[in-house]
Amino acid sequence: MSHDTSDRNLRILLASRPERAPSAENFTLEEAPVPEPGEGEVLLKVLYLSLDPYMRGRMSSAKSYARPLEIGEVMEGGTVARVMASRHPGFAEGDIVLSYSGWQRFALSDGTGLQKLDPARAPVSTALGVLGMPGFTAYAGLLTIGKPKPGETVVVAAASGAVGSVVGQIARIKGARAVGIAGGPEKCAFLRDELGFDAVVDHHAADFAEQLAAACPDGIDVYFENVGGKVWEAVFPLLNTYARVPVCGLIAQYNLGDAPPAGPDRLPGLMRQVLTRSLTIRGFIQTEFADQRPAFLEEAAGWIASGQLRYREDIVDGLENAPEAFRGLLEGRNFGKLVIRVAAE
Amino acid sequence: MSHDTSDRNLRILLASRPERAPSAENFTLEEAPVPEPGEGEVLLKVLYLSLDPYMRGRMSSAKSYARPLEIGEVMEGGTVARVMASRHPGFAEGDIVLSYSGWQRFALSDGTGLQKLDPARAPVSTALGVLGMPGFTAYAGLLTIGKPKPGETVVVAAASGAVGSVVGQIARIKGARAVGIAGGPEKCAFLRDELGFDAVVDHHAADFAEQLAAACPDGIDVYFENVGGKVWEAVFPLLNTYARVPVCGLIAQYNLGDAPPAGPDRLPGLMRQVLTRSLTIRGFIQTEFADQRPAFLEEAAGWIASGQLRYREDIVDGLENAPEAFRGLLEGRNFGKLVIRVAAE
Repeated sequence: MSHDTSDRNLRILLASRPERAPSAENFTLEEAPVPEPGEGEVLLKVLYLSLDPYMRGRMSSAKSYARPLEIGEVMEGGTVARVMASRHPGFAEGDIVLSYSGWQRFALSDGTGLQKLDPARAPVSTALGVLGMPGFTAYAGLLTIGKPKPGETVVVAAASGAVGSVVGQIARIKGARAVGIAGGPEKCAFLRDELGFDAVVDHHAADFAEQLAAACPDGIDVYFENVGGKVWEAVFPLLNTYARVPVCGLIAQYNLGDAPPAGPDRLPGLMRQVLTRSLTIRGFIQTEFADQRPAFLEEAAGWIASGQLRYREDIVDGLENAPEAFRGLLEGRNFGKLVIRVAAE
Repeated sequence: MSHDTSDRNLRILLASRPERAPSAENFTLEEAPVPEPGEGEVLLKVLYLSLDPYMRGRMSSAKSYARPLEIGEVMEGGTVARVMASRHPGFAEGDIVLSYSGWQRFALSDGTGLQKLDPARAPVSTALGVLGMPGFTAYAGLLTIGKPKPGETVVVAAASGAVGSVVGQIARIKGARAVGIAGGPEKCAFLRDELGFDAVVDHHAADFAEQLAAACPDGIDVYFENVGGKVWEAVFPLLNTYARVPVCGLIAQYNLGDAPPAGPDRLPGLMRQVLTRSLTIRGFIQTEFADQRPAFLEEAAGWIASGQLRYREDIVDGLENAPEAFRGLLEGRNFGKLVIRVAAE
């Protein structure tokens, strides 16, 4: 079986549900013929596949905001694709589109949800990152729920990632102090030197909690929660009265399985702090704020043009490498927005 | 020592900090001379003392939204009092005022925070309940954070209490379905028959969680949290996407002590549900919404006049009975807003 045969489709299916961290055996690589578009359909060739933490949830059977994938289905995912053949009046051969084609080289679409991209405006892969779902998650969650005010302290974990890097930079644009948490000196240096974070803390440090406290002398007004786990432990005592905690992900606990971990039970303590500090904890999915997307695209493009919003992509070549890259994403091994280059532009 | 000598002051002090439930030895009853008002002061004779769950927090040394009481200080509390002598230009002998004089028969005030009450408008004790802090807590928390929409389901625990009874009735006024949780058949009948709750569940029932689920066939859109503990356990699985949880109290855990209880650790599960159901959990203290108080007073008075907002007081005679009545409050033994009648009007 060759993975280089470009006139054959290659698809990655959910083979079984991981109980903890996904492994190679949870995925099936399958060759298939390239499909033929019917009337009203387009044939898409995937150029870039986005890998994002939420996909771990889709692999589980637990109830969530989206239905779980069935065993044997193609893994879901946002993609940038080229229209190879069109029998749809709205799309022409050669168009570059944002689609939701999943982990495969070729896909059909009836046009639902496709968005044309302008390659002259920005590298098309950014439609999966800084100008796409992750960037918009950062924008909507931070501004609508976090509501940072000038001078306030905003903390974000996974700060060199697709969402976190945008959270910190928008916090700064709004006049707040951005404190980033990342793993390892290279990521920390990037946040401080390239993205201009006001302070950076390495969560690998033995005295991580003390370092975070030192980096937040006035406490924390907004904690953008995309991680959970021990970062939350360190953040929690620092939250100020009226602090806001938008929750868009909990990557540190996705691989923990369904059974609640051993005690002590921290829930009563959380609720006590919610009460005595008038905290706001608010889960969200960016789709809830879809009406803000046009404003986001306009503002974010402007910030990129002015140099206020920078981004970094971690591009991995070859669809067959997606499962291992995805495992690395859940462990924080990526550095920047993780994208699979499925085919050359 | 007589407690009936009306020309002597009687004060109840914090003698020691309870670790769990307060007991008689945590309080000291002390006689003292009636104080003399200085220039710019008034002498107040307390008529009614409000007993409220928040006072349990003041007895602890744990950091909260207010400073803890010191050992030997007079127990704090909202009161309705008569001006016995005035050397303050804003108050005259005979005025009835809302004050924060605490657990004592007589107190001085320089006028700070005093609010004159009109006995012709409503029984003055209501300034401690339905028209006071508890009623306003219900109003502000439900409308500002809970935001019930017509047809939605609002659940409130301690529903026959000072806050819960107002929450349920305002929910109904706003067109929502009010489901009350209370302890015992008498309180449940009162909620259903006197206050018009749409459904009532007795938390003493062995199948309480199943009964609550049956009472909420469309799930729960707003849970007004003033209890915590096992009620939260039963509510949590029923919360709908975008449910709102204003948190104004956690009476079930006030007596648990400071150490976190044994596991399993329910915090990760809570955060997962916050994320996947886009929940809002928001702690608050009514003082945050002080600018809404005039609107509340006007609306609530109108609802009382029209019969849409009813209330029940549980009046206990004699300041010396306050410690035991307070113990009962924390165990749910009161039935309606608990008030100590310190002196006859």
